[in-house]
Amino acid sequence: MAAPGSSLLLLFLLLAAASSAAEANPITPGFPPLQLHALRHRRSTAKSSGGRYAVSAAVVTAAAAKPFTAHYFPQELDHFTFKPNSSAVFYQKYLVNDTFWRRSSGPIFVYTGNEGDIEWFATNTGFMFDIAPKFGALLVFIEHRFYGESKPFGNDSNSSVEKLGYLTSTQALADYAILITSLKQNLSVVASPVVVFGGSYGGMLASWFRLKYPHVAIGALASSAPILQFDYITPWSSFYDAVSQDYKSESVNCFSVIKAAWDLIDERGSTDAGLLQLSKTFRACKTVKSVYSFRNWLWTAFVYTAMVDYPTPANFLMNLPAYPIKEMCKIIDGFPTGADIVDKAFAAASLYYNYTGDQTCFELEDGSDPHGLNGWGWQMVMPMTRSNESMFPPFTFTYEEKSDDCFQNYGVRPRPNWITTEYGGNKIDLVLKRFGSNIIFSNGMRDPWSRGGYAYKILPVLKNISSSIIAIVTEKGAHHLDFRSATKDDPGWVVEQRRQEVEIIKGWIDQYNEDIMSK
Amino acid sequence: MAAPGSSLLLLFLLLAAASSAAEANPITPGFPPLQLHALRHRRSTAKSSGGRYAVSAAVVTAAAAKPFTAHYFPQELDHFTFKPNSSAVFYQKYLVNDTFWRRSSGPIFVYTGNEGDIEWFATNTGFMFDIAPKFGALLVFIEHRFYGESKPFGNDSNSSVEKLGYLTSTQALADYAILITSLKQNLSVVASPVVVFGGSYGGMLASWFRLKYPHVAIGALASSAPILQFDYITPWSSFYDAVSQDYKSESVNCFSVIKAAWDLIDERGSTDAGLLQLSKTFRACKTVKSVYSFRNWLWTAFVYTAMVDYPTPANFLMNLPAYPIKEMCKIIDGFPTGADIVDKAFAAASLYYNYTGDQTCFELEDGSDPHGLNGWGWQMVMPMTRSNESMFPPFTFTYEEKSDDCFQNYGVRPRPNWITTEYGGNKIDLVLKRFGSNIIFSNGMRDPWSRGGYAYKILPVLKNISSSIIAIVTEKGAHHLDFRSATKDDPGWVVEQRRQEVEIIKGWIDQYNEDIMSK
Repeated sequence: MAAPGSSLLLLFLLLAAASSAAEANPITPGFPPLQLHALRHRRSTAKSSGGRYAVSAAVVTAAAAKPFTAHYFPQELDHFTFKPNSSAVFYQKYLVNDTFWRRSSGPIFVYTGNEGDIEWFATNTGFMFDIAPKFGALLVFIEHRFYGESKPFGNDSNSSVEKLGYLTSTQALADYAILITSLKQNLSVVASPVVVFGGSYGGMLASWFRLKYPHVAIGALASSAPILQFDYITPWSSFYDAVSQDYKSESVNCFSVIKAAWDLIDERGSTDAGLLQLSKTFRACKTVKSVYSFRNWLWTAFVYTAMVDYPTPANFLMNLPAYPIKEMCKIIDGFPTGADIVDKAFAAASLYYNYTGDQTCFELEDGSDPHGLNGWGWQMVMPMTRSNESMFPPFTFTYEEKSDDCFQNYGVRPRPNWITTEYGGNKIDLVLKRFGSNIIFSNGMRDPWSRGGYAYKILPVLKNISSSIIAIVTEKGAHHLDFRSATKDDPGWVVEQRRQEVEIIKGWIDQYNEDIMSK
Repeated sequence: MAAPGSSLLLLFLLLAAASSAAEANPITPGFPPLQLHALRHRRSTAKSSGGRYAVSAAVVTAAAAKPFTAHYFPQELDHFTFKPNSSAVFYQKYLVNDTFWRRSSGPIFVYTGNEGDIEWFATNTGFMFDIAPKFGALLVFIEHRFYGESKPFGNDSNSSVEKLGYLTSTQALADYAILITSLKQNLSVVASPVVVFGGSYGGMLASWFRLKYPHVAIGALASSAPILQFDYITPWSSFYDAVSQDYKSESVNCFSVIKAAWDLIDERGSTDAGLLQLSKTFRACKTVKSVYSFRNWLWTAFVYTAMVDYPTPANFLMNLPAYPIKEMCKIIDGFPTGADIVDKAFAAASLYYNYTGDQTCFELEDGSDPHGLNGWGWQMVMPMTRSNESMFPPFTFTYEEKSDDCFQNYGVRPRPNWITTEYGGNKIDLVLKRFGSNIIFSNGMRDPWSRGGYAYKILPVLKNISSSIIAIVTEKGAHHLDFRSATKDDPGWVVEQRRQEVEIIKGWIDQYNEDIMSK
């Protein structure tokens, strides 16, 4: 079987990041509607510009094959109230691969889908396909309600708060519990062990699923899940501080150039003539109308590249070389003395947008949303600020402003304490030391989301919470690197990380089978 | 401080039982609306009839004092969807006793209220008051939404399915999590350990609360919680078989007389003259119009007495002597040879309704509901049948009929698999052996609800699920006997049961404090 495509950028990050980008706008402080600018996919087939920033490393292409079949489960709209409308049915999409399934003894590996169409996640979680043969596992990827084709109200699903109100993580977890339970019954494999997998927001869902539905899943691998990016658990500035540190660790000059670019762009873009000039500098396909488009464009490149600062070439939303931050900083540091700061920042960002060199110009104000992600802005309140020490313009966060903004945009106010009340998070090590089992929290420290993951809580001393709630932290890892397909170029520490994960999961399954046998 | 009243009959049982009583009606098979007949409280001050069945044992009276203060928490209507109406606030009642609270170090003991006004449960859970001084505990009793004063839509709360739809156990658990979290913040005791207590349905809620909200409660004592009375986990006939066995264990004749009574009553009540005659036999205050009123009246007495077959005199809904089944069977067995079977059954049941001897006649068709329990019939589908081996008329159960009946009465169909999907139950020992901690499931085997409790799963071999999920089973115990106030007449095994519970709870708190200190 051909492994699925090698790239996965969990949109959770993109969207949260995009939202934060918008926050950079000093004219509209608070939380404007979700900016999807950052989510566009570059599918342009225009000829290469052959520019100086087109690095000549190997380019990874996504696998075209679809090694799964699509199915649709009649799911109830509202699991927690019991009104006539609660039982309205929508069709939830899920994908199945049974190529490697040993029906009599194999486990079921379920990906708890996050905020996008499920094919995208399935195609980009090569790890599950890579390990399925060893386990004889059935693979199932379940689409999250309100994303992809799993829209309770069709194309109108996001059109009003009365409909969006059903888009919550608790409803999604219940969807998964019901679908998995039903699927096992229909397949006559009620006793088969289920392990859930998820990355980013999907990882949050996977770990919460094990905690809330231990009778459905015997264990969870939660990769790069920022379950602690709520309330006051994680310092609010840590995400952007971590991004900045990634760049600073390559070169202080690189960090300083990027830090200095924002004000310069603001200044130059304050007139129509300035916008025109900046549009030329940024090779914009069309003249850009707002100075914030330039800022967002840069911001997207620098933040997302930090998340996906992988040790091997990768095709995400964008094709990138191995260790792309290092490459970006090389570009900045390679400029001659006295070169323009904005030119440098643009050149570095171009690596993100045009590594393959096939872009003749850039659509800086493109708001397309090919993966149907525009429900994410609705879902969660994650407090994030940008400190003076970061390389980004300072930004403060207050729950009051966030609340007012949500009310203005949606007609409801967020419940800032709900996530930690429902799922915990405060003193998580104290709680999980004495409760729960069979969860792996994996984090790569190059990934800024690691600061809101369990890794944050265990630093500076790496330790596991308990004998069966395990933290796997890789110093050079980035965002859910472990979930990517194995490649021949993977460093030894990635190979070892995946080996450990497989060994632990095998231990869960073996223990479960022993428990069943001895009953 | 005066301990609260000694009696507690958790209405869960009453209501489920009452519902089953109605099922006995062969003319309206299925699930008619909830019969509240059985819930009336006898407050008659009529002079004693001085009848032969008024046993002269000591009568326990409820304590008049209210050792708690009432508070009201602004609670949101719907925790799991996010529509404008979801955040509508209602006021949830809770009671507090801080008499024994050592604020600096004491734990918080929370009773997770069940299906009735919370004062009733607080007044009847003497165990918590008895052990509070030892722990320096703050006592909190939270009322369940839709009961007592905690009605989201006031007196109209049960008037339509659109309102009743918010009456679910998942919403109730979230209520508790939010209220407890907020209360701890307001009292500036965020780090204080919380232990939840509950009996019957309240015990189901307590154990589910520990499983779903381990970050809010460090442990749970779930007394007589029939968490396994769902789906196909517990044999459907076990409840009534257990009631029958309680009587048979005292006297086979007693069992046989009761078993023979139902058909005789049907036969005699088939004419108006027969109903008049039966009304005289049953000392009815008013002539009874339906033969099923006699059956329900007897049924209530025999079933509820089995649940509360306590080793000491107790004042529940009714005053009863110690070991009331033994007393009932003594009455039956004491009749002269050839006496009428219906006379015998009536005489035995009179012990339940008139132990104090102050009733001059009986209101057989009284439907009053002093504790506001009429939401319970809405809440759960517990399959229960009556086998030919029981002392009750046979009754079959089908999910289809139940569904049709619910649809007819409420306009919605039940989700028979929801409870086990949301909370588990199937293979509970396998699941909880490897997940979770700090739960005590206590059951008394005289209580027919024990068959749907964890006790059922561990019989015939008594064993704990894990080192910290403990089953405490008393052979002679009845329905949450452990939660009653200690009395000087308590048998040693009750004293020992409560001592064990206190010791285990103390262990949880000590461990938590050690964990906090060593952090």
